[in-house]
Amino acid sequence: MGNKKYYQALRIEKVEELLNEYFIFEPKIIDINIINADSRILAEDIGSPINVPHFNRSMRDGFAVKAEDTFEADEENPIVLKVVGSIQAGEKPQIEVQNNECVQIATGAPIPPGANAVVMVEYSNMLDDNKVEIYRSAVPGQYIIKIGNDIKKGTIILKKGQKLNPRDIGALAAIGRKTVKIYSIPKIALFSTGNEIIKSGEPLVPGKIYDINSYTIYLSLKRTGARVKFIGILPDNIHIAKNSIQDIIDLYDIIILSGGTSKGVGDVFPSIIPDLGEIELLIHGIRIKPGKPTLFAVLKRGGSRKLIILLPGYPTSALTIFNIFLKERISVWCNNPVIKKQTITAKLAERVYSELGRREFKTVKIIDKNGIKYATPTKTGSDAITTLVGMDGYFEIPEQVQFVEENEEIKVILFD
Amino acid sequence: MGNKKYYQALRIEKVEELLNEYFIFEPKIIDINIINADSRILAEDIGSPINVPHFNRSMRDGFAVKAEDTFEADEENPIVLKVVGSIQAGEKPQIEVQNNECVQIATGAPIPPGANAVVMVEYSNMLDDNKVEIYRSAVPGQYIIKIGNDIKKGTIILKKGQKLNPRDIGALAAIGRKTVKIYSIPKIALFSTGNEIIKSGEPLVPGKIYDINSYTIYLSLKRTGARVKFIGILPDNIHIAKNSIQDIIDLYDIIILSGGTSKGVGDVFPSIIPDLGEIELLIHGIRIKPGKPTLFAVLKRGGSRKLIILLPGYPTSALTIFNIFLKERISVWCNNPVIKKQTITAKLAERVYSELGRREFKTVKIIDKNGIKYATPTKTGSDAITTLVGMDGYFEIPEQVQFVEENEEIKVILFD
Repeated sequence: MGNKKYYQALRIEKVEELLNEYFIFEPKIIDINIINADSRILAEDIGSPINVPHFNRSMRDGFAVKAEDTFEADEENPIVLKVVGSIQAGEKPQIEVQNNECVQIATGAPIPPGANAVVMVEYSNMLDDNKVEIYRSAVPGQYIIKIGNDIKKGTIILKKGQKLNPRDIGALAAIGRKTVKIYSIPKIALFSTGNEIIKSGEPLVPGKIYDINSYTIYLSLKRTGARVKFIGILPDNIHIAKNSIQDIIDLYDIIILSGGTSKGVGDVFPSIIPDLGEIELLIHGIRIKPGKPTLFAVLKRGGSRKLIILLPGYPTSALTIFNIFLKERISVWCNNPVIKKQTITAKLAERVYSELGRREFKTVKIIDKNGIKYATPTKTGSDAITTLVGMDGYFEIPEQVQFVEENEEIKVILFD
Repeated sequence: MGNKKYYQALRIEKVEELLNEYFIFEPKIIDINIINADSRILAEDIGSPINVPHFNRSMRDGFAVKAEDTFEADEENPIVLKVVGSIQAGEKPQIEVQNNECVQIATGAPIPPGANAVVMVEYSNMLDDNKVEIYRSAVPGQYIIKIGNDIKKGTIILKKGQKLNPRDIGALAAIGRKTVKIYSIPKIALFSTGNEIIKSGEPLVPGKIYDINSYTIYLSLKRTGARVKFIGILPDNIHIAKNSIQDIIDLYDIIILSGGTSKGVGDVFPSIIPDLGEIELLIHGIRIKPGKPTLFAVLKRGGSRKLIILLPGYPTSALTIFNIFLKERISVWCNNPVIKKQTITAKLAERVYSELGRREFKTVKIIDKNGIKYATPTKTGSDAITTLVGMDGYFEIPEQVQFVEENEEIKVILFD
């Protein structure tokens, strides 16, 4: 594709088409601890290497007996058995039960050899330390969870491609798995850029402003389910910026920068992209407002693909691009459902002008007046965070429309 | 309430009534870093201590001028200004602009004193290093983001009680806030218990089984949004268990144990609860299947309340109690919406028997046969994890029902 698309603002439909075709996340198969595997997609069939339980297990507190010794027992004619030992949950059976013998047993304990049934403590009466009366007959297998009752050795319990939930992970735990093969979700590195940007909490000096995008974009990315790391603020310096990106690029699938994406002298970032390696520049410039100076590229590097995104520096522009082009894509890559956007119909509270040739996303506040919903458009621009804060949603103004009239009915897409 | 409720199995409606009245989480007001404040409830009004931006800021690359110097300029009669300096984004203005002077300026840079408008670089032509032709007149204020345009010093931008989103946190960043006061969400300590329980990954020895609840309950709690820590596996030993709970209790709002909750000799946990301090035992025993041996208590300790929950040890029992009594409550305490349960109607594939006096929650697998949905009930019991894995949901059998007939229409509540 070469550099042809530098500064060629594309229509939104064309941008979507290019992103759908080239801007693809290719998951890897990775091993993770099962405790981190909730909602991840399994990359292997899971067969059980063991029987669960792997021993015959008592379901009740009582006495492990030979069932045939108890066949004659009832409340009026209890039988007497010799108590030859006791076994608690977690203990290894040491004694074999012989005829007319029994072992005191706790719920969850293994059935000792020779025994084939459990009589509940409620139907027994200890006569002395080693004699017990049994008041009920037991059938073979009574109150015993048999070896493999839950999961038989060799059974496939979970299948490649399924999305794991806490119950499934319980099954992985039950068969003793510590790790599991799953498909990776995107690891995203986030930078803010600009000599004027300082970290929140630092003292404010003339000419500087606090970084906003490292919070808004970071948290919006987190909500998709992605693994995100904010790396830091880059100065408008080609050498430092390039080295900082090169330093971390192999650790991430997606690199997102905000700021310095335009064609001004301070906008160094588009110019360093081709130097990162084998770059396919997909988009630089979109006929959208806010958010025009946006860049999407794909970097081929050592057999893998990295997705490179330069977002505009203005907070409303950056978040608009995120919401329109990235939110759903990254959610899907993270195996999360795309949440349907909620919309309402409202009357526009005042005339709004728009630029020809760019689709505009205008934020509004909804006010209810006598049961009619009015949408009041924002007074601030894409540079302001209050264009988003305190607003309820946005409406779209098509490319060929120069203004939308007061009282016109508009469809407002509500923020999450 | 004393100990009266020990082993008195209560009806589900009574359990709900007691939980609604006494089992309450009381959030504290805490200070957290704004990066961790997404979806949290604000516990203070947020006023801005600064103007945003706190300087007049250029919206374009170009020249900062006195507008009145340019009033005569047009493409055929450009005016010539002396370039007395340049200023980049992030720099502090050093030079005052005098009549017929200008300063080269970058987008985002502060407007130097004396200037009151910006002329875009597209309407200029550098004649030499310190002379520029200007082809367009500028009106005062043109391409300048004024001090406080986004947020005026002293304005309340966010209100106590509102739920923060990434945009709001962007506004907190914009005004330089590093931390924010919010209402706490529950911190939950989770233990598994039982001498027979071993950690996944450890070698399996006779009599032992792998811990399941520390995965299923941990991950289910995580999904509510709560802060959860799995502390470890406790042996069935009163002294060790009591000390282990006492060691961590002040760090958590809710303590959840699973296992050893019944009245057997190995079931030590109900007996240590009264020793933890000023205990109000709400529930011990519920007329539910699975999940009967469940305990809920409230501990008053140093002016704060701790909620104590003993879940049954069997994995299906523990998760059933979690789903019926805890999931929605904890989600609400974490400010998360309660997701409406999805249900479908199906024909029961075979007759199912149930115990009189307990409401039963029976898991089923849904199979489609010629367009009719059949619900096949699980073959395993509450001790098995496969009672939940591979199943699609569950249906309820009321307390007074002894069996549900084959082909009867049932309402199946689907798993998430």
